[in-house]
Amino acid sequence: MHRIWLYIFLVTVERNICVRSEVFTSIAHIIQLLDTEIELAKQLKIYLKNEHVRLVHIEKFLSVINNDLSQARGKEEQYFSNPINVYLFFKHLTTEWYHIKDMPSPDIRTIIDKNWLFPSLEDLTGTGISLLRLQNTYQITTSQMANGEIDLKFRSQKLTSDECYHIGRVAYINNDFYYALMWMQEALDRFDEKNKRALISRIDILDHLSNVTFQEGNIENALALTQEMLAIDPNHVPAKANKVYYESLINGQTLSKDQKKDSLASSEKIGSSSKKNFRVRKQRQNNYLELSEVYKALCRQNRAKLSHKRQAKLFCRYRHNNHPYLILRPVKEEQLFDEPTILLFHDVVSDTDIEQIKVLATPQ
Amino acid sequence: MHRIWLYIFLVTVERNICVRSEVFTSIAHIIQLLDTEIELAKQLKIYLKNEHVRLVHIEKFLSVINNDLSQARGKEEQYFSNPINVYLFFKHLTTEWYHIKDMPSPDIRTIIDKNWLFPSLEDLTGTGISLLRLQNTYQITTSQMANGEIDLKFRSQKLTSDECYHIGRVAYINNDFYYALMWMQEALDRFDEKNKRALISRIDILDHLSNVTFQEGNIENALALTQEMLAIDPNHVPAKANKVYYESLINGQTLSKDQKKDSLASSEKIGSSSKKNFRVRKQRQNNYLELSEVYKALCRQNRAKLSHKRQAKLFCRYRHNNHPYLILRPVKEEQLFDEPTILLFHDVVSDTDIEQIKVLATPQ
Repeated sequence: MHRIWLYIFLVTVERNICVRSEVFTSIAHIIQLLDTEIELAKQLKIYLKNEHVRLVHIEKFLSVINNDLSQARGKEEQYFSNPINVYLFFKHLTTEWYHIKDMPSPDIRTIIDKNWLFPSLEDLTGTGISLLRLQNTYQITTSQMANGEIDLKFRSQKLTSDECYHIGRVAYINNDFYYALMWMQEALDRFDEKNKRALISRIDILDHLSNVTFQEGNIENALALTQEMLAIDPNHVPAKANKVYYESLINGQTLSKDQKKDSLASSEKIGSSSKKNFRVRKQRQNNYLELSEVYKALCRQNRAKLSHKRQAKLFCRYRHNNHPYLILRPVKEEQLFDEPTILLFHDVVSDTDIEQIKVLATPQ
Repeated sequence: MHRIWLYIFLVTVERNICVRSEVFTSIAHIIQLLDTEIELAKQLKIYLKNEHVRLVHIEKFLSVINNDLSQARGKEEQYFSNPINVYLFFKHLTTEWYHIKDMPSPDIRTIIDKNWLFPSLEDLTGTGISLLRLQNTYQITTSQMANGEIDLKFRSQKLTSDECYHIGRVAYINNDFYYALMWMQEALDRFDEKNKRALISRIDILDHLSNVTFQEGNIENALALTQEMLAIDPNHVPAKANKVYYESLINGQTLSKDQKKDSLASSEKIGSSSKKNFRVRKQRQNNYLELSEVYKALCRQNRAKLSHKRQAKLFCRYRHNNHPYLILRPVKEEQLFDEPTILLFHDVVSDTDIEQIKVLATPQ
């Protein structure tokens, strides 16, 4: 399976970043970007060191002028009647302050030479879309993916709330509200108020979550989420507008009076506990089995599922197709599946040749 | 004495900063600058706080990308075969790096509004010249001044090597080589190699010291100081040139052969111990007693020096000069000195009036 989804992933990345003339379409290309990251880390380390030295200088200067102030305070005339104090005071406000002002502070935007190759935002979106496609094809749960459990042989790091939010955004922008909802929910579950490095707030997540919940047709939950937003920020203008809108929709629904009452009551009840997360259990509409669905189902096929009877029909053989070269050195063919036929050819290319091809394929 | 030298000091400051239309000619004016320093300290504190927060963000980002690198190193293909890792890697090099790059870092040169009044470099030079004039008039030793012991009632801080160097520079620029030498020597005595905040180096001091020593006619010591400079930095171009020049002067002097030999030998000997400081004991040429010298000598006069016979002639009285108002409220007159007559009038202006005058005099 590993080989197949990797292929899908790269094809998807390729499709999504065609604007960049397919720069990052192979792992070899991505590995090249590691050099960028190594250089960036190196430059940032130097930058931080210099900036710390600069701040220490400023701190010392600040303590010097604070010392002036604490000595002069309340006895200014006496203090300045000593001409040495006047001299020092003038010196601090002239040469020493000029020195502090003129200490070079490099622009962080220019610390890394612009000739270094960086991925673009389109590349990032491309990888996000690829992840969603993988998730859909192999029906991986969002929490499995967010825990880095796509590849059991080589797990990735766990995703943070920020990262789940971003993947949710990618789905949202591509009108894939089902996955947008899943990932926003995951982002909310992983959200940590205490994380100062977070680039997004709880309200950002709730905003998207209520939107996609509404898009998926669950107006009551959308209303509850909007109320949760208003509990955090009572002045959130879009949330206020949405609340009115959702309420009017709920009131206008052709429910029996009793049903309507229940719905509103439960919605209010949920909304009142602002810290509670909402799970939308609605499943993605999957009742259309188009060609792509057949193909995805095929990708998920597993030999273990074959009956013993069918498995007994599978066989291996040396294949030559009457080709003169292959008669001398036939190819090892293994049948993996009967309907449709899936064949695996062993040792077609030697390991040495594979390495050679990789070297030739690596961008110079 | 306190009152008199303060007057001299302010007059001197005034004379030296006339280019600035006499802004800082009174203590009241200088006190106004305290507000500038208070504001500067406030803004610097805010600046430092924000910069520290920014650097913490950058440090965290650096640890994130270092984590990428340490995980990928040596197993790049395996690492990037997990698409979550590719996604995270792209995210770090795009949105997260953009976030770090775009974090606002205010220009320290603009943290304080330019409408705040700052002294100029001319003001600083003016106070330096005033200090030298005070020192000359009252014959205060350089080390006394550098220890802040001008005003025993209200001592100032001790001066650092940097500050002594700067006063020496002021003397040097004004061709007062005698005081330039004294202050440079003081700067050298106070120089601390370990002080990272120092704006000047040992070589800067030695450079001036050898120059003024030469100007004061002591070529042997100037040569020894130049050799001390070359011991620190063998490639110091002006020092190399000066060494050749001083040596040629010494060789050309009309000394007897023996004297010449001794002189060179002792000079070499002194020069060989590069950390040793040189004291020039030559006194300032003070054999011209012009009017200003008489006046300076007068300033230094002290009642304690009067003989009992002369002291017995001094008296106090109520003075009215037949002025109708003064007959009603005569002025208290005290004779301090007989030849020339120095009188001190007591309680001419009440404390309340003094405060009122100060308020009126304070620049708005």
